[in-house]
Amino acid sequence: MKDQLSLLQTLSVETDSKIVMLVLDGIGGIPHPDTGLTELETAATPNLDALAAISICGMSDPVMPGITPGSAPGHLGLFGYDPLEYYIGRGVLEALGIDFELRDGDVAARGNFCTLDENGIIVDRRAGRISTGKSTALAEQLCGIDVEGVEVIVKAVKDHRIIVVFRGEGLTDKITDSDPQRVGFRPQTVERLAVDGSKMAEAANQFIEKALHVLKNHHPANGLVLRGFSQKPDLPGFSEIYKLKACAIASYPMYRGLAKVVGMDIIRTGQTVQDEIQSLVENYRKYNYFFVHYKPTDATGEDGKFERKVAMIEELDRVIPQIQALGPDVLVVTGDHSTPAVMKGHSWHSVPVMICGAFCRPDNVNSFNERACLYGGLGHLTASQIMPVAMANAMKLEKYGA
Amino acid sequence: MKDQLSLLQTLSVETDSKIVMLVLDGIGGIPHPDTGLTELETAATPNLDALAAISICGMSDPVMPGITPGSAPGHLGLFGYDPLEYYIGRGVLEALGIDFELRDGDVAARGNFCTLDENGIIVDRRAGRISTGKSTALAEQLCGIDVEGVEVIVKAVKDHRIIVVFRGEGLTDKITDSDPQRVGFRPQTVERLAVDGSKMAEAANQFIEKALHVLKNHHPANGLVLRGFSQKPDLPGFSEIYKLKACAIASYPMYRGLAKVVGMDIIRTGQTVQDEIQSLVENYRKYNYFFVHYKPTDATGEDGKFERKVAMIEELDRVIPQIQALGPDVLVVTGDHSTPAVMKGHSWHSVPVMICGAFCRPDNVNSFNERACLYGGLGHLTASQIMPVAMANAMKLEKYGA
Repeated sequence: MKDQLSLLQTLSVETDSKIVMLVLDGIGGIPHPDTGLTELETAATPNLDALAAISICGMSDPVMPGITPGSAPGHLGLFGYDPLEYYIGRGVLEALGIDFELRDGDVAARGNFCTLDENGIIVDRRAGRISTGKSTALAEQLCGIDVEGVEVIVKAVKDHRIIVVFRGEGLTDKITDSDPQRVGFRPQTVERLAVDGSKMAEAANQFIEKALHVLKNHHPANGLVLRGFSQKPDLPGFSEIYKLKACAIASYPMYRGLAKVVGMDIIRTGQTVQDEIQSLVENYRKYNYFFVHYKPTDATGEDGKFERKVAMIEELDRVIPQIQALGPDVLVVTGDHSTPAVMKGHSWHSVPVMICGAFCRPDNVNSFNERACLYGGLGHLTASQIMPVAMANAMKLEKYGA
Repeated sequence: MKDQLSLLQTLSVETDSKIVMLVLDGIGGIPHPDTGLTELETAATPNLDALAAISICGMSDPVMPGITPGSAPGHLGLFGYDPLEYYIGRGVLEALGIDFELRDGDVAARGNFCTLDENGIIVDRRAGRISTGKSTALAEQLCGIDVEGVEVIVKAVKDHRIIVVFRGEGLTDKITDSDPQRVGFRPQTVERLAVDGSKMAEAANQFIEKALHVLKNHHPANGLVLRGFSQKPDLPGFSEIYKLKACAIASYPMYRGLAKVVGMDIIRTGQTVQDEIQSLVENYRKYNYFFVHYKPTDATGEDGKFERKVAMIEELDRVIPQIQALGPDVLVVTGDHSTPAVMKGHSWHSVPVMICGAFCRPDNVNSFNERACLYGGLGHLTASQIMPVAMANAMKLEKYGA
């Protein structure tokens, strides 16, 4: 019994106890140079701190020390899947996030409308962040593009972001991106990465060529780049492993997509954390595992807005009592990775985690931040070890061995 | 992507940022019975302590808890190679350390001149630590020994230490040592450990027999023992994995050998730490990774000289500002293993580590020793995880996954 998921599937039992996993996206930070304090250390978080005092705390490495995860590996780890073993492509994620029903064999790509200069060089990778409405109109035009032997479906995601799905026989995701991921370069020709990749690469290039023709008078959205060509992965089901009735509450599409790919039910919710809490309250009786995703901590970190991230942490802190009022048997609070405002992006730094429950064995930690949680009872663990501990605390795991 | 080195090779990018990894050999200790303080805790180390205050600190297990490493696994771990997966024999190490060009198929052994009594029993495993000059003269005599079908090359290393290289068709390193590694025993007959080991075992025994005849009137060097028969391992290249221009600065041959086996350039240097620092300064522009090895902390620990080891730590402490003055983007200070003076040898104890860089996320640790670093932000990690964290801090690793 070497594989963690197999072990958990063997040991897990169905019970009524409820687990709430609150994921504060990109919560970890590094100190502001002026104060020497991180975002969490700067924020006034009386509720998170009070929760830490009755929780077992620790630090979580999303993948392994030194590795900066994207959102998919960050969340797969939190769901208990080894992110080095299971991989989800960006295209699939985005497609699932807008409730697009990917079929087996479909190849999905994440697309950006972009701005090209007169020489075809990318000058803005986001086409001035055009509106979702504009994107939707353009996507509809691109949907009509005729590619030999392949159906191509284009859908707007948000702002300049779209997905392009290729449907047909004999497609594969073993091809390169057209997106060079920086300005000053042309969109690249898609190339096959495997012997059976020719049909797919040709379809992608044919689509892109025709799309550029359609877009040429739509400045600033006069270009298109594709990346993360991927097919739906075959992941062991979350509900089967843990014997949970699991749902996801997330205002941002990609995180709903991630939950869907492991088989969670998706709860419709609004854009604010209050909307999310209301969805949690309304659905609380129907499920016994709730993945609640809070995006603003990551978004403000990505934007390099230290004070804004602090404010978003404080906003989140204010809803903690509402979650506690539901009386979950186990409440987990952590993040999928760090997004230090100082670095304006995801980072490798470990992430505070706390697990509260009747049997959690609290430690001496009574504030929820990067330095305090270093002294917690969980020590340093890998994100994929959080689910087993949460399950144990919910009395959902039987004894291993005689 | 499950293998750490493959993952790092995929994620690593070439940049100008520079990493200095300062390895204090055998730095970890255990408390002196009179004071209750370890060597590091006893030493006055204002510079290391000031560095700890701005670093992220932790404790490193060279291989895994409880395992006492030799120098090779200790360093392979620091270079990011799993020492349980990759193995370097002692003979190969010593050969590489004296710039001996091993060919594929060569089998190298580490030899000691030793002193035998009239019954052929070893009474001094180091032949009174005879001079390198005397060793060189004896090695030249042994070089002429005729072994059937095999060329034998003997080279002095330092003091009583030599290497013996067997060159010919069909040789293997799957044989036992002749060195019993303690006094009071005779040199042992070499035996094969695999079915194809007969030719090699016979060649080794034939050589030893003839060598003893040559040496018999050279008391105290009237005997010879061989150990660590080994062939050049096929390791993935350090520079290829990390995309670094890497060099090694080490006054002691074996550590140059270790660096060479992973493909680092070897910088000529002198015997003192000041020589090493000067080599670092002189070559600082040419490379972006520097392995700097400090031997005296291990040598004094091996000799059981507690106060001397403390003095060597203090000597090292005084050069830290010279390294900092170069402004490396990332400065790592750690050891390859512990060598507690009280134990007069390598031990399994975890080793303090600190990583300093603009994005390191300092913790509350402000002194560099075994007890203080327990509370560091790195927690407990395995030595092979230090390189990924150093690479991340140098902004040399891309994000993993979408």
